[in-house]
Amino acid sequence: MAARKQARKGTVLTRADILAAVGRSVSRADSLPVLRADRARLRADFDALAAIGSQPSGGLMREAYSPAFLEARAFVRRRLDRAGLIARVDAVGNLFGRTSAPDGAVVLTGSHLDAVPNGGKFDGAAGVIAGLEALRTIVEAGVPLGKPLEVVGFVEEEGRFSGLLGSAVMTGRTAIDGLAGLRDQDGVSFAEALAGAGLDVSRIEDAVRGAGEIAAFVELHVEQGAVLEQAGIPIGVVTAIAGTHRLAVEIVGRADHAGATPMEARKDALLAAAEVVLAARKIAVESARPTARATVGQLFVEPNVTSAVAERVRFVVDVRDVDAAERARIAERVEQAIAVACQRERLSYRIANPMSATPGHTDPAVRAAIEEACRVIGVPFMRLMSGASHDAQNLAQVVPTGMIFVPSRDGRSHSPAEFTSLDQLALGTDVLIATLLQLGAAAR
Amino acid sequence: MAARKQARKGTVLTRADILAAVGRSVSRADSLPVLRADRARLRADFDALAAIGSQPSGGLMREAYSPAFLEARAFVRRRLDRAGLIARVDAVGNLFGRTSAPDGAVVLTGSHLDAVPNGGKFDGAAGVIAGLEALRTIVEAGVPLGKPLEVVGFVEEEGRFSGLLGSAVMTGRTAIDGLAGLRDQDGVSFAEALAGAGLDVSRIEDAVRGAGEIAAFVELHVEQGAVLEQAGIPIGVVTAIAGTHRLAVEIVGRADHAGATPMEARKDALLAAAEVVLAARKIAVESARPTARATVGQLFVEPNVTSAVAERVRFVVDVRDVDAAERARIAERVEQAIAVACQRERLSYRIANPMSATPGHTDPAVRAAIEEACRVIGVPFMRLMSGASHDAQNLAQVVPTGMIFVPSRDGRSHSPAEFTSLDQLALGTDVLIATLLQLGAAAR
Repeated sequence: MAARKQARKGTVLTRADILAAVGRSVSRADSLPVLRADRARLRADFDALAAIGSQPSGGLMREAYSPAFLEARAFVRRRLDRAGLIARVDAVGNLFGRTSAPDGAVVLTGSHLDAVPNGGKFDGAAGVIAGLEALRTIVEAGVPLGKPLEVVGFVEEEGRFSGLLGSAVMTGRTAIDGLAGLRDQDGVSFAEALAGAGLDVSRIEDAVRGAGEIAAFVELHVEQGAVLEQAGIPIGVVTAIAGTHRLAVEIVGRADHAGATPMEARKDALLAAAEVVLAARKIAVESARPTARATVGQLFVEPNVTSAVAERVRFVVDVRDVDAAERARIAERVEQAIAVACQRERLSYRIANPMSATPGHTDPAVRAAIEEACRVIGVPFMRLMSGASHDAQNLAQVVPTGMIFVPSRDGRSHSPAEFTSLDQLALGTDVLIATLLQLGAAAR
Repeated sequence: MAARKQARKGTVLTRADILAAVGRSVSRADSLPVLRADRARLRADFDALAAIGSQPSGGLMREAYSPAFLEARAFVRRRLDRAGLIARVDAVGNLFGRTSAPDGAVVLTGSHLDAVPNGGKFDGAAGVIAGLEALRTIVEAGVPLGKPLEVVGFVEEEGRFSGLLGSAVMTGRTAIDGLAGLRDQDGVSFAEALAGAGLDVSRIEDAVRGAGEIAAFVELHVEQGAVLEQAGIPIGVVTAIAGTHRLAVEIVGRADHAGATPMEARKDALLAAAEVVLAARKIAVESARPTARATVGQLFVEPNVTSAVAERVRFVVDVRDVDAAERARIAERVEQAIAVACQRERLSYRIANPMSATPGHTDPAVRAAIEEACRVIGVPFMRLMSGASHDAQNLAQVVPTGMIFVPSRDGRSHSPAEFTSLDQLALGTDVLIATLLQLGAAAR
């Protein structure tokens, strides 16, 4: 505790000094300072960010490129400036803040700044604030760096247009050409949304960073599931991230009068959609894979009036698994179920794939650094997979990547009920600091 | 034909004159002039009304109290004025135009002026324009009236707030108290919508008319089904109108992350809703009643994002039959299916009944007048039931009521594909004129 207290004030007294004094073996991590996040500052910044886009109902409205999103990004940018980090927004709207030295490939941390509609305060924001706090703690402690550290607040992780988009553009993991025409639920195009945020869609390629510019990526995120809570363990070290494969389905029938049209004379698009909703769950369950998910969370009916048979139903089947081949098998069975239901109901349909993220596998060396950080700090950890998608998936395709999970109460997420205590978040931030030091501090 | 031609010019040469001249027996209807609708004027007014609220896609947007609705009502009002009819709008927004003499209970005709979103041009409008044309044809012919004739353009038949509302208020068939707080899909209250149309919700009781004020009601409407077309018969005489009973269902689960939450740990409101959508159809089909309908045409998911399990699903089950007891049996089975599905999925639910219209049975004397009108004009007719709801249902509870159907191409309705030819509509208008003359002309 004495070492930690001193370290918080910036004194570079390391665990190695103490271990060496008592004759114990010393690792690379041991030779680094043990720094702890400033709890009060972490809380103040977390709360200030959480208030931006917060609704009276408790839910957060901070969709990518919305005024609330831009305000949140501006807030974090001011904090980066205040911490002496070099802040910039890239051509797609991601926010970065890096240490002024040294040159070279950065060790990147952070998460996303956007939120699902009526979402929680922790999803994404926890990792951005943890990254901010980690960098300023390290900078303030004056630790000599071998690699520059950088924190990122990604844009458009949640899928207003296409999920994980900010990181996909940055890593060159998406075809730029098709993006401009993507439209959100309200018909706003990606190009229009960018323009509203002062960006030019024709220039987003400028946001691509070569693999040589990033040495490693570590994302802290709330688990969004209940595995850590049920195990009573404060830190999760992510082994793999389930890739999301989305089937955007449109089923077309005929809008007939709900009273005048006999039951057998109808072409009711909602009947087939209902069959698919049920089939998707059944297929995921029957796969007997605990990592498999198939969900219909979004569904629109047209014309959506009580007295008209549904002419058109649009919905998305979200299919996930850590194994791409198993996931493809589930998606294929869902596509078969769509074909069968539409044939039975004499309906036409089409299926698009707006998203098919490769499952991400974290890097053994980054995982080892996180686990070593836990050991140094003295906090229990467990290894687990992520059912949720994360920007880390895109990073994992091009650079060594790791993820730190902190617990979610009741596993709740994408909901105002989302909750992680400040203590849990601060402990995760301590682990993040120790991990970044291993990856980025100068050799002694 | 000579008689008709002269009648169109206003000469009161009757069928009875001709029948008597050739020694045939003469009925009351035969002693009335045979008047025909002015085809060019009927078409011009129908087209002008159809253009109000028409979308580039071909669909009509003319929801009750909307600017397009008010514009349509103002258009018809100008036509009433021009025809020398006494026009007025009542306290709920219905438009009336009556002959200036005599005094006493009116013979009322007409239909509704509002439309379902993206609806067709004929539903409601056909009956209003036919009524307008019928009255001015009769007035211009100078036929002496025993009872005043009146045409109505009802408001809010289609259910923006609650179906058949304009006629329900007028006939005193609805409790006024609960209306102000009704809200449409966008959260606009009935009181707000009325205020936007220059009306005061606290005064709508002024719109109630005593049964003694209306002698009879005849509504011309497009069939909205394909029975007439398939039979090749131009006029339908409606025997009964299926009553609509609506179950407004809200199912509540939990918004969990679609990736992080294992399939078995979810409370997915959409799964239960999908079961109910399928069960409703099954129950209607299994009733083996050709007059039974059960439809889910409106369904909303919350939060309705791809990556969140559905927390809340709201939908309406529309149940219809001409027999109230059979309809209640179907609705009860649907309620049981809701309970079973929600129990299985561990969800809570509630069911409201925003609408439960009594099935309407038309009056034998009015039906006889319509059939006699067909005979006089020489047009084939058939008797049939109405699966769709109509304002005539409300009128049928308090005054002798009849309905005239004209064919709908392919039975299509509540859709831009809705179509009835001008010839079909004009023939129906001729039948309406002859019916109104029997009900309202002075005894000779």
